[in-house]
Amino acid sequence: MFDPIRNLSLYSVLEEHVRSYPGKIAHAMGARRFTFADLLERVDRLINALDKAGVKSGDRILWLGQNSDGIMELLIAASQLNAMLCPTNWRQSRAELADQIDDLEPAVIVWQEQEVGKEIAAARELAVFKDGLWLLHDGEGKGSYEGFIESASRDRNDHREVDTALGALIIYTAAFDGRPNGAVLSQNTILLENLVLAPTMRISNQTVFLAVGPLFHLGTLMQCLTVFHMGGTNVFVRRTDAMSIAQAIDAEKCTRTWLVGKTMDEIVDLNADGRFELKSLRSVPHTDAWNAMVTVEQLDTLVPGYGQTEVMGLAVLPYYGSGTTGIFGRPSPLCQMRIVDEGDRDVEPGEVGEIVFRGPIVMNGYWNRPELNAKRHRGGWHHTNDLGKREADGSLSFIGPKVQMIKSGVENIYPAEVEACIRKHPDVADCAIIGIPDAKWIQSVKAIVALRPDAKATSRDIIEHCRERIASYKKPSSVEFRESIPRGATGGIDYKALDEAYGGGNYPGGTTRTS
Amino acid sequence: MFDPIRNLSLYSVLEEHVRSYPGKIAHAMGARRFTFADLLERVDRLINALDKAGVKSGDRILWLGQNSDGIMELLIAASQLNAMLCPTNWRQSRAELADQIDDLEPAVIVWQEQEVGKEIAAARELAVFKDGLWLLHDGEGKGSYEGFIESASRDRNDHREVDTALGALIIYTAAFDGRPNGAVLSQNTILLENLVLAPTMRISNQTVFLAVGPLFHLGTLMQCLTVFHMGGTNVFVRRTDAMSIAQAIDAEKCTRTWLVGKTMDEIVDLNADGRFELKSLRSVPHTDAWNAMVTVEQLDTLVPGYGQTEVMGLAVLPYYGSGTTGIFGRPSPLCQMRIVDEGDRDVEPGEVGEIVFRGPIVMNGYWNRPELNAKRHRGGWHHTNDLGKREADGSLSFIGPKVQMIKSGVENIYPAEVEACIRKHPDVADCAIIGIPDAKWIQSVKAIVALRPDAKATSRDIIEHCRERIASYKKPSSVEFRESIPRGATGGIDYKALDEAYGGGNYPGGTTRTS
Repeated sequence: MFDPIRNLSLYSVLEEHVRSYPGKIAHAMGARRFTFADLLERVDRLINALDKAGVKSGDRILWLGQNSDGIMELLIAASQLNAMLCPTNWRQSRAELADQIDDLEPAVIVWQEQEVGKEIAAARELAVFKDGLWLLHDGEGKGSYEGFIESASRDRNDHREVDTALGALIIYTAAFDGRPNGAVLSQNTILLENLVLAPTMRISNQTVFLAVGPLFHLGTLMQCLTVFHMGGTNVFVRRTDAMSIAQAIDAEKCTRTWLVGKTMDEIVDLNADGRFELKSLRSVPHTDAWNAMVTVEQLDTLVPGYGQTEVMGLAVLPYYGSGTTGIFGRPSPLCQMRIVDEGDRDVEPGEVGEIVFRGPIVMNGYWNRPELNAKRHRGGWHHTNDLGKREADGSLSFIGPKVQMIKSGVENIYPAEVEACIRKHPDVADCAIIGIPDAKWIQSVKAIVALRPDAKATSRDIIEHCRERIASYKKPSSVEFRESIPRGATGGIDYKALDEAYGGGNYPGGTTRTS
Repeated sequence: MFDPIRNLSLYSVLEEHVRSYPGKIAHAMGARRFTFADLLERVDRLINALDKAGVKSGDRILWLGQNSDGIMELLIAASQLNAMLCPTNWRQSRAELADQIDDLEPAVIVWQEQEVGKEIAAARELAVFKDGLWLLHDGEGKGSYEGFIESASRDRNDHREVDTALGALIIYTAAFDGRPNGAVLSQNTILLENLVLAPTMRISNQTVFLAVGPLFHLGTLMQCLTVFHMGGTNVFVRRTDAMSIAQAIDAEKCTRTWLVGKTMDEIVDLNADGRFELKSLRSVPHTDAWNAMVTVEQLDTLVPGYGQTEVMGLAVLPYYGSGTTGIFGRPSPLCQMRIVDEGDRDVEPGEVGEIVFRGPIVMNGYWNRPELNAKRHRGGWHHTNDLGKREADGSLSFIGPKVQMIKSGVENIYPAEVEACIRKHPDVADCAIIGIPDAKWIQSVKAIVALRPDAKATSRDIIEHCRERIASYKKPSSVEFRESIPRGATGGIDYKALDEAYGGGNYPGGTTRTS
């Protein structure tokens, strides 16, 4: 419900920033630099243009492109019309993109020609949904995003009755059932999470944040949103590229970003002649050469906490649980957390169960998935599909996704728990647990183990090691040795490859139930 | 509107703390120590008892007593029933207390016998409103607060449909028009402000806060609320008393409190033999003897920011405006601020105007004051009655109240209130109140009185008249008689002329700047 005097929206935050930070840069990308006043003018024009184009409450706007300041300005504009922006994964195949167009049926699609235009054109052909206004982001004049903005008046939009409890942002995630689902997040959820993330991530109005990670994931986008809310500056690069990153840090005096080691090394090589000044950047330590170029800052903790897109990124944070047994910390001041069994009954501290949440950081639901929503939100709690346990001090130990659950007789076995046990064996370098069919017990536990060089542990040693440490039904029935455990791009175990190689699968619990 | 899955209430925070902080002390007062689990049980019993007593949505509960953990538990319980708690100023006169009873018409009154019981009994006699359930806080058995709690079941109350946008807390303030007004604050307002206050005031789950200042003002209460929300411990003393304070710091290992210099000196004297261990307390520096007893901590800034009860205490904070010209800082991420002229038009940066706010920290309104609310909230902005200016960098310089406020010790005195009292004296034709410098109390109250023809009232008569009707600290210390009170063209008292004639001035509050 609209309450003008108590309203807090992305648009109202921007309005205040124009007064509080005169002349300050809000967005920078390459040669483009917009002050908060510039940004408000662009957002007002966008709102007026979208309004004229018939965009109304509940409508979807789809962003088909790489990282850009356009994502932030479209989100602020869409939300002031009670419409929603979905910045989607540009790395998806044409078929996946077409599926998402059909899933969202967007009123407006902003698309990018450079690098991704061909796949997008193919997706547009494939999609059943043929309506929607297509605007080219990296173009000019009629049919372009800039032309669209310029076509409208700059009349102010503070009179609009925005309902901040409605969806404003859609982020696709969680392909548990083989199809990504779009988590719908409200302005209330976004703005509240910002207030918790700011102290946790040391974001303030002094922050100049370089958005390197993809904005179609919350990991980077939630930081941009917090920087915006606190009155800091957001700097964008189109994609991860050492040259663009080094140039942006130098030009905008960026203070924070998030880089993987490989990118840091590339920047070190690129900047061997010291042509880029990178001292403004506060970074975790890396190589000596990197440390000499930036300002090294030791963080209190490298554990980021626990969360998922469906709870606005982070729900459990070490910041709110100093010195806890469970290194993921305690729930933030924005949520309640329980650990429950299959019947949604609380399990005892120390016992593994599904992590469920309640509170204003819970998504409104998945777009267009009423049955899944009823299931995930059953009993008034959001079910994460993730497993964890409460330690005796009330903190959380995250165990792993529930989807890989193995069923042995009536017992549920979670690979992460058995893997953690095997990794404690001195001969083990890495391991993975899968479930294989078992005539008597539905499934049995198979361990895939990579030993350290010259280590001599046998199958029997590994099984004995587990028998002494965890419940007997959880120990592996068989062990396979191999040189290394296959892992995906983000470092996660490639269970699919292992299941194919060793005859595992049918999770969770050997198809006895679905997630 | 009740949204079970996204609900965040004082009660839901408490529920989570029981899980997140097993065994941890939530409240301590003297020998009483309650864990979060104890507190939840007490709150549940209170809710069930209040419910049985017929307390319903919108009802008021009045706290007539000194500082106590009871204020916090009653607030949590009342808010879960959509009812409101008003902890009122126990230093008021019987007539003022009676006025407040009649203003609130409370369903339940919790009162204290010790020290304040006589005035309260007299106020009860004076009040027109004779209903309401009276419960004695410092008593036992039937008719007592503890008996009331014990009488009810401990059935859980998480099923209740709480609307966190409704009023939960009433704090009387701002006697600008001669009568205090109760600012109604919602749970949304309280919980949001907590998220901003926590990093600003360095409050975390490690904090053990000693509430010394009166809980009928937001200054201390908002810190208790933030400590509660973050999972810290609140420790209470009945009133400012060096012995109780030293005992509490020692016993509970308090880390934070707020003391005036005089109290610190008293504690130094009292603890000359070192019988109390006070090292847990982090304090601003004071005398050498004090510094040796506590842990001295330099704060980044001693300027607390700007706010008022009507915007949940603090709205503009240095924390959100590092290095600004206006030392009060910039608006917090929870509000918008403008500086306006009499016609509600924005004034230019650098020009003085009235400070107005919008955002979720704005009170719902004053209790039972529809006309005043319409005026203070005109045009969708809360008008503070305070003057300030925006500096060129967007920060705030606070100037002072639009009216003449006098400061006596820690108390704010509004001339209109004392004038209204004096005018009731049959011998008085007109009067005005000014503040003159006072070596001990910052300012003292001076009355300028014009008597009716042939009237004979003396200074002593006027002072006695006030002593019987308003709080003792508000009564004049001196009275000057003159034939008439100078008034300007529009009929307003010419305070400037009176200040010049009798040595008054330096408003607001002498040389201090608290509003």
